[in-house]
Amino acid sequence: MDRQVRCYDCGKTYRLEERQRCSCGEPLWFDADAETFEWPDDDRNWTAGMWRYEDALPVAPSSAVPTGSVPGTTPLVRAEGLDEYAGCRLSLKPEGQNPTGSFKDRGTAVGVEYGLRDGHDWIGTVSHGNMALSTSAYAAAAGLEAAVFVPADTPLERLELIARHGARIFRVEGDYGRLYAETLGLEAEVGRFVNSDTPLRVAGQKTVAYEILEQFQPSAPDAIVLPVSSGGQASGVWKALRELEAAGLLDADDVPRLYLVQAAACDPIATASREGRESVSAIEPGETIAVSIANADPPSGTRALTAARETGGAVVSVPDEATREAMDRLATAAGISVEPSSAVALAGVRELSRRGELDADEEVVTILTGSGYKERYDVDVESRTRTIDLEAVERELAAALE
Amino acid sequence: MDRQVRCYDCGKTYRLEERQRCSCGEPLWFDADAETFEWPDDDRNWTAGMWRYEDALPVAPSSAVPTGSVPGTTPLVRAEGLDEYAGCRLSLKPEGQNPTGSFKDRGTAVGVEYGLRDGHDWIGTVSHGNMALSTSAYAAAAGLEAAVFVPADTPLERLELIARHGARIFRVEGDYGRLYAETLGLEAEVGRFVNSDTPLRVAGQKTVAYEILEQFQPSAPDAIVLPVSSGGQASGVWKALRELEAAGLLDADDVPRLYLVQAAACDPIATASREGRESVSAIEPGETIAVSIANADPPSGTRALTAARETGGAVVSVPDEATREAMDRLATAAGISVEPSSAVALAGVRELSRRGELDADEEVVTILTGSGYKERYDVDVESRTRTIDLEAVERELAAALE
Repeated sequence: MDRQVRCYDCGKTYRLEERQRCSCGEPLWFDADAETFEWPDDDRNWTAGMWRYEDALPVAPSSAVPTGSVPGTTPLVRAEGLDEYAGCRLSLKPEGQNPTGSFKDRGTAVGVEYGLRDGHDWIGTVSHGNMALSTSAYAAAAGLEAAVFVPADTPLERLELIARHGARIFRVEGDYGRLYAETLGLEAEVGRFVNSDTPLRVAGQKTVAYEILEQFQPSAPDAIVLPVSSGGQASGVWKALRELEAAGLLDADDVPRLYLVQAAACDPIATASREGRESVSAIEPGETIAVSIANADPPSGTRALTAARETGGAVVSVPDEATREAMDRLATAAGISVEPSSAVALAGVRELSRRGELDADEEVVTILTGSGYKERYDVDVESRTRTIDLEAVERELAAALE
Repeated sequence: MDRQVRCYDCGKTYRLEERQRCSCGEPLWFDADAETFEWPDDDRNWTAGMWRYEDALPVAPSSAVPTGSVPGTTPLVRAEGLDEYAGCRLSLKPEGQNPTGSFKDRGTAVGVEYGLRDGHDWIGTVSHGNMALSTSAYAAAAGLEAAVFVPADTPLERLELIARHGARIFRVEGDYGRLYAETLGLEAEVGRFVNSDTPLRVAGQKTVAYEILEQFQPSAPDAIVLPVSSGGQASGVWKALRELEAAGLLDADDVPRLYLVQAAACDPIATASREGRESVSAIEPGETIAVSIANADPPSGTRALTAARETGGAVVSVPDEATREAMDRLATAAGISVEPSSAVALAGVRELSRRGELDADEEVVTILTGSGYKERYDVDVESRTRTIDLEAVERELAAALE
């Protein structure tokens, strides 16, 4: 149970309770005893979900959180039907199958267990949607209060999902980036806010990469492609790859390249990458359908950019039109419904193949971060639907399927 | 790979392609070589999902369906925080964690594999919602067409989810019970319609009870409580218990009692039970929030009633008010969001405890059939939300959590 956090950039260390960001300005993450890590034995069952990798996590699961709320062990789907579209050998990691329908449950579970261990009676987060929902549900399951800070313009549709679990919701007027930073700086609350790039959350989020690499055994994928917003998830995936390499479970030559994808209308990390800059700075955002990843001032943007560069990957952005098309392909060719912010990853794969970054014979894993069933999107129902009379069933069916 | 189906009531057997209902009028189900079944070895991993019980199923998984679409291995959640409310030792089986967010994926997976094996290029279903969505998504994943027949008054919100996966949707004007029966009788189509109580679907649905019983090893729950609509799921659970008993994996004394719950406004099976009748007949339905289980003329109603009676259980119904309360408790005390049709099961547990059917020290498993994230419900957002200024974050937080 390690409380030591470290800056990936300058190497300085702190205790988690001391601060969640380094004095150099960059985000921190947990040290892990990676050198001693081994793939779990069969007796640590897959039903343990992400706690299968407990030895690499800063906290252990307790009995206070019902085991059914355990995230992880999402499938790895080899989606041959999308290979031609993707321009490579595509596998999908549908994180929407986690308990609250998104990848966020992994980090939330770590944050909740840590809070319980320290005797806290509430946890907090700053979020647009998925993370707020996940935090509310897990807090409820663990018997904690949840304090959720959302931008004032968050749609009622999303607030309803969050409110069901009994969270206290604060709609905040003002700059989102500042709100995010300020909650982490609140004197009395250090360690209770499990925001999207904080050490506790990054520790949980990294387990998706442990799973991907274990599911891919004995080989490794050539590339992992994921959407990027705050940079917290990208940081977690990068951290996992570094740990697995340090543990001798992944050869240096086999480390997958990390590709990060943003929506073109709000792409501060891709912009910095395009301009060859060393660090990411805030941009003026435009409108995009990929609302969950529209972060114009990403707190772990530079760390994410570094992750892509150091693994030989890249950061790209895609227009909403490509995202809509990818979303449709996933639903009709793979049977998986995702939110637009997840579909950007597949749109990104297509773009990367077009640019020659990905080859047709390469194994590429795309992380689909969230379920598409939680919100309504513009779907053409009319063209697929006929209203008929009961007497006409046989005739209509024959005509339609001829 | 057995194609023999049998009437649970009169024992007559047929080949599946011959007919899906017995000449005596009752529904059929597959014979299974239950006597030889054993709990799977550890090498048949839990990541195989419901195919873990392949030896007890009429068809095997193929590579044509991406493995990520595999349903099953949903958790079993011991929900102590709800024991007092439930009046017993409560465990939950959140089937909303299946790929399309409901228990229906289990039966759909069997139907799709069977269709693929027989070289069909489409499958069909008659459904209000969850089953139509599941069938559309699985057909898409398997490269099959889906023909989905829905009542003409199905809300657009649900049609949108189904249409995303590219299904052909037929909105049918006319009696739902007749539509259901007629699709099964279509000469050319026998075996392609995987409706809610057909042998293929019941075979898949039974796997939830295999899982519950294996997860409960070495003991067995005293009772299993689930919502009932067509009676297909109840039939599957009953069938699993009979098979496990026949295989010697469950002592006759340990067979859990089956309790089935309906919404009071549409409760034909509970009505027949209350009136001491041997068989279930159609009723005039009222309005209920539990739309997914509002079947006024259940095709496996009598089979479900028999399942409850033969296991020493019962069929009860609950008012919408109790369902709303149970839905709220699940979200706020267990962190699980369910649709109203699932919450009726917990409301039923409470009612059964009140009646003395369940004791405080009994182990009771409640099947939560579907996720609550797919539709909007009436949620009190206002009372849980405050709109504040960024400068007031610290003060508001302190005030709220004092």
